[in-house]
Amino acid sequence: VTWFEALDTTLDEVWQELLRGQGDANAPARQPTLATHGLTGFPEARTVVMRSATRKSAELEIHTDRATTKVSELKTRPRAALHIWVPQRNLQIRIRAEIEIADRDRTDKDWRKVPTASRENYGVNPAPGTPITAPNQIERSADPERFAILICRIIEIDTVCLTGPLHHRALFRRADDWKGQWLAP
Amino acid sequence: VTWFEALDTTLDEVWQELLRGQGDANAPARQPTLATHGLTGFPEARTVVMRSATRKSAELEIHTDRATTKVSELKTRPRAALHIWVPQRNLQIRIRAEIEIADRDRTDKDWRKVPTASRENYGVNPAPGTPITAPNQIERSADPERFAILICRIIEIDTVCLTGPLHHRALFRRADDWKGQWLAP
Repeated sequence: VTWFEALDTTLDEVWQELLRGQGDANAPARQPTLATHGLTGFPEARTVVMRSATRKSAELEIHTDRATTKVSELKTRPRAALHIWVPQRNLQIRIRAEIEIADRDRTDKDWRKVPTASRENYGVNPAPGTPITAPNQIERSADPERFAILICRIIEIDTVCLTGPLHHRALFRRADDWKGQWLAP
Repeated sequence: VTWFEALDTTLDEVWQELLRGQGDANAPARQPTLATHGLTGFPEARTVVMRSATRKSAELEIHTDRATTKVSELKTRPRAALHIWVPQRNLQIRIRAEIEIADRDRTDKDWRKVPTASRENYGVNPAPGTPITAPNQIERSADPERFAILICRIIEIDTVCLTGPLHHRALFRRADDWKGQWLAP
């Protein structure tokens, strides 16, 4: 009996990995790849840091600089994919999510919890992506207005485990209360 | 002097990593994350296997099952992002590429080079993503018609190195012959 033989335990394993990412800086789910619809006609993908995972609401939270292009992209099209590969389990987790940018009250509240050493990540000048003449032509100063929280409301989880002779793939959807469906891999 | 202090050596390092992916099954560039515009309104991201990298033409090749959703997505919108994270270098490589699905002659030619043990990856039935009642309700049989080569013509490489107190970010574009431009990180 492998854990992948039941849909409910499959979903449990996925959430174990997501919750590990919240607490363990070395867990694969700590640094998912966030894919968005870009503004220049290409999809975009980059590493982000996942700060919070809540199974009950099926939400993840990501902190980012409000001046990054990803925030502009998500304001334009508020849907994203998150991709996590867990080598220890040969497990791929693909998440489709609707993204909400947290409001000011929420952001102000969480800013107080950002460690002082991390605050300079929010406030590089010029803004991320601006052409500069050399890598040292930037300044960093903590700016609470630049702090943004991306609330990722998970709509679907598409997961595949490559261990064993069969590749087990399953789709879990918010719309059917996460009961799950096997898919051909 | 760190390697990131010159644009040309930066690009050399990126290509070293891409070329390593071609030859070394354990290299990070062997398994990039491919992001596409999905067909249901969400971006999509999944692990793929990179089979070939050519610096001169700035092209990468990926093998996939022609019946996967990614091929339909790329027929609809032939642009993708490739994301690679190289932990040993704290290096993120983000690639924007135009995707061409190789023609029949080319595919037939390369099929002969696919190891017998790998051929069953092209021909799972029902097609990938089809709902099934249990993970064992599939059959595999090698089908050359299912073999597809995605030729990724790199348009831009956006890379950032997180080593050291400065995060060095640079953009290289086919349109200006890869001469490169520093960006604020």
